[in-house]
Amino acid sequence: MARITLLTDFGTADGYVAAMKGVIAEIAPSVFMDDAAHDIAHGDILGAALALRRYWKVYPAGTIHLVVVDPGVGSARRALAICADGRYLVGPDNGVFSFVLSDASVSEVYSIATEHVASRTFHGRDVFAPTAARLAGGAKLPQLGERISDAVTIALPPAVATDQSVMGEIVHIDRFGNLISNIPREMLKPGQAARVAEKDLPIVGTYSDVESGELAALVNSDGVIEGARRDGSAARTLNVERGAPLELISE
Amino acid sequence: MARITLLTDFGTADGYVAAMKGVIAEIAPSVFMDDAAHDIAHGDILGAALALRRYWKVYPAGTIHLVVVDPGVGSARRALAICADGRYLVGPDNGVFSFVLSDASVSEVYSIATEHVASRTFHGRDVFAPTAARLAGGAKLPQLGERISDAVTIALPPAVATDQSVMGEIVHIDRFGNLISNIPREMLKPGQAARVAEKDLPIVGTYSDVESGELAALVNSDGVIEGARRDGSAARTLNVERGAPLELISE
Amino acid sequence: MARITLLTDFGTADGYVAAMKGVIAEIAPSVFMDDAAHDIAHGDILGAALALRRYWKVYPAGTIHLVVVDPGVGSARRALAICADGRYLVGPDNGVFSFVLSDASVSEVYSIATEHVASRTFHGRDVFAPTAARLAGGAKLPQLGERISDAVTIALPPAVATDQSVMGEIVHIDRFGNLISNIPREMLKPGQAARVAEKDLPIVGTYSDVESGELAALVNSDGVIEGARRDGSAARTLNVERGAPLELISE
Repeated sequence: MARITLLTDFGTADGYVAAMKGVIAEIAPSVFMDDAAHDIAHGDILGAALALRRYWKVYPAGTIHLVVVDPGVGSARRALAICADGRYLVGPDNGVFSFVLSDASVSEVYSIATEHVASRTFHGRDVFAPTAARLAGGAKLPQLGERISDAVTIALPPAVATDQSVMGEIVHIDRFGNLISNIPREMLKPGQAARVAEKDLPIVGTYSDVESGELAALVNSDGVIEGARRDGSAARTLNVERGAPLELISE
Repeated sequence: MARITLLTDFGTADGYVAAMKGVIAEIAPSVFMDDAAHDIAHGDILGAALALRRYWKVYPAGTIHLVVVDPGVGSARRALAICADGRYLVGPDNGVFSFVLSDASVSEVYSIATEHVASRTFHGRDVFAPTAARLAGGAKLPQLGERISDAVTIALPPAVATDQSVMGEIVHIDRFGNLISNIPREMLKPGQAARVAEKDLPIVGTYSDVESGELAALVNSDGVIEGARRDGSAARTLNVERGAPLELISE
Repeated sequence: MARITLLTDFGTADGYVAAMKGVIAEIAPSVFMDDAAHDIAHGDILGAALALRRYWKVYPAGTIHLVVVDPGVGSARRALAICADGRYLVGPDNGVFSFVLSDASVSEVYSIATEHVASRTFHGRDVFAPTAARLAGGAKLPQLGERISDAVTIALPPAVATDQSVMGEIVHIDRFGNLISNIPREMLKPGQAARVAEKDLPIVGTYSDVESGELAALVNSDGVIEGARRDGSAARTLNVERGAPLELISE
């Protein structure tokens, strides 16, 4: 049985997500639907791309990941259907699939034909949900549109290493107030600490390696350096936002 | 296989929704359950009715829509089970089904017998969830109670057209801060703009027809006039709430 | 077909919940997954335990309840798999299962072997989700680890009865601002009222037994005394937090 996941910025106070699910249920009545997350910040393409990176390949081959964070809905931006390492992805061509495309061993990207779609404001319901449901029903990518090779991608700013330090930045703040950086674990050297907002955070193994309320940094479950506060919000404590520097320094 | 959707104002920080799902799983173990939305504002019957309007008929015939926004729980208000255009709906008789009943071609409404229910504070778990599950298991409406013809309905204030303008109002503000009015697309004339809070919003085709940060109005995916701000919240920008006037004017 | 419920404090703005679901879908492709709640306050073990109490036994025997509110992830705290009255429960050994263990007629608790787990910060994905999925696939508890008899439990402060009154406290405030106490219905005597923040709330049968905006108390759907405000938040109106006294007094 097929499984479709749904990632949107629609929230859960309106019926938008349910309208997408209804379209899917109509076309593919016995599909499983998993809510991935619906509280992506309004129009936050990078936030959606980073959330998707956490689960797209954890799901088994054959899963269909629907992503509707789509501030350009109804504009000339293309609609995509992708097969990457055996998983399918459907959503707008605005960069939400950047890390899927960079992390996949093999991928094929198709631009979905949308000429006959009436609505210009809700392609989640009128383009992406029906496409995902058709894939669940066995449709092949070439039936949906034209293959392309120039999907829009966004890149994280690269972390820059010098002899003694690594200059990175906070690319996402999660629900816990953890500061997720662009520094991969491979750049971390023994004896370093993470500097954020003029504080030096010791590198530890897990949150509870420090006392409650203390700040620390660690290699998180995504494999990147993360600043955190045990039992609290590092973002609030340090008063930092996405884009702020996070540096590895040798003490 | 049957599918039950759930719409509540229970939020997702307590176990109330899960208690309803548990009741359903006990009675109808192989049913699909789709969360529609659980962050309807506390007791907001109109908000629930408008959310439900977005998806109830998008789902295929046979779907069971459970709606528990029920500020009058335990009072004399009746409990309803409805069949409308082949879909089933279960919830309190307080107006949440108003647009289902007005939009359906055919509908039958039954008042569910609740004499034997112990709890007076959680009919979601003790009345509505078991009723939905029984319908999923093949129960017929007449087995559940008495047919009635006087379900409670609420009506949107009508938009009023004059020669040169249409006087409407904002009936809902969605998660994006979009201003959803009571003016159907049929009342829009060429050359008009939408006036909200003394600002004139040009009528466009979709959000991205204006620059980021700009205000505009459009025919939304529900087929009504909506005020919006590209990449932002029109509600916050214009400082308006539900009930504020939204007018179509000829410029 | 098996059914797994998920209760976390991960929120719905990141991909953490979806990563857990992906692991489950990989191991047990045809399992049903029900979101219980993901907005438990960050690290709120008691809040999770009370939410779980509301639904764990409402679900049918065979259901697997996954609970990941885990501030001690990666520390020496054990990982548990439990069978209680026919339901399975998987999560950290920090007290989240306290009321399951106290309310169940029979229970067996196993400490899951985790020696081979790489990640120290996301046992939801790397320990608990795969364990739940294996149970869904038919694994037996003794295959997962060692049986133990000293699971961590937390206890609610007991309500204390005197001749004329019962001294209790608010142990949880729900999404509606209802004040959920530790006083079971059996301690309530005729003629009593509930005193909170120097206000006396009359005991009623349901929320709508008082006028809109009025305060009252009632035996709630969990069987305990609850302070409430019709169509509003008792917590905000009375300006009280978890831990504040709630007393039954004879008037």
